[in-house]
Amino acid sequence: MSGAVESVGEMSVFDPDCTSREVLEHATGRWGGLTLACLVGGPLRFAEVRRAVSGISDRMLSQTLQRLEADGLVSRTQHSAIPPRVDYALTELGRPIAERVCDLIDAIYAQLPGIVAHQRGLDAATGSGGD
Amino acid sequence: MSGAVESVGEMSVFDPDCTSREVLEHATGRWGGLTLACLVGGPLRFAEVRRAVSGISDRMLSQTLQRLEADGLVSRTQHSAIPPRVDYALTELGRPIAERVCDLIDAIYAQLPGIVAHQRGLDAATGSGGD
Repeated sequence: MSGAVESVGEMSVFDPDCTSREVLEHATGRWGGLTLACLVGGPLRFAEVRRAVSGISDRMLSQTLQRLEADGLVSRTQHSAIPPRVDYALTELGRPIAERVCDLIDAIYAQLPGIVAHQRGLDAATGSGGD
Repeated sequence: MSGAVESVGEMSVFDPDCTSREVLEHATGRWGGLTLACLVGGPLRFAEVRRAVSGISDRMLSQTLQRLEADGLVSRTQHSAIPPRVDYALTELGRPIAERVCDLIDAIYAQLPGIVAHQRGLDAATGSGGD
């Protein structure tokens, strides 16, 4: 279970000026969470990450990876091969965070039948149909 | 540990059309994660959530709560008191997800010293200073 919803020492995600809030936004955000989660299985090349995180543009993926690199959560390794190869991998800092993102995804999967039933009930009640 | 980074049955957060991806975006997003996390301690009124999730506007908080309500993660209860009182609380569907958000926040707190050291090293290396 978890208690750190307020703050630990001087850290608080609820403080707009705390670095932890910035990191939470990078590690979740629209693409950050999916990018971290897809690297849990091991290093991937740019094109492999893009394929895994379906729907992301090259530009957004570059930005997302750069942000995660700047936080020290993801490392970029250029291999001197021909053709040149660049791998992205979780760092020691990034792995426990990425694993907690996966746990969050697991929790969403576990509740998804209930969530979908709720959404459908809402649609039926409001008559707003499938959309 | 976690294995559900690919898909469970037909569910996959990596599929842009899967409801789990939409729910992940609502439960993390810029404000969703903080809103869920602040409700782990118990029901709160609108103004209390706004105070907890420092920096959010009334409009954004309304939208965030409405989305979490539509997913069935948060319930809204109007008490017939004078003055009228409205409470927001985690539902049975929402609690395990909110707890995993808190675990993620805990993991970020645990890694924060390393993350900040990495960011500072990067600033020193690039000479970009404090900003």
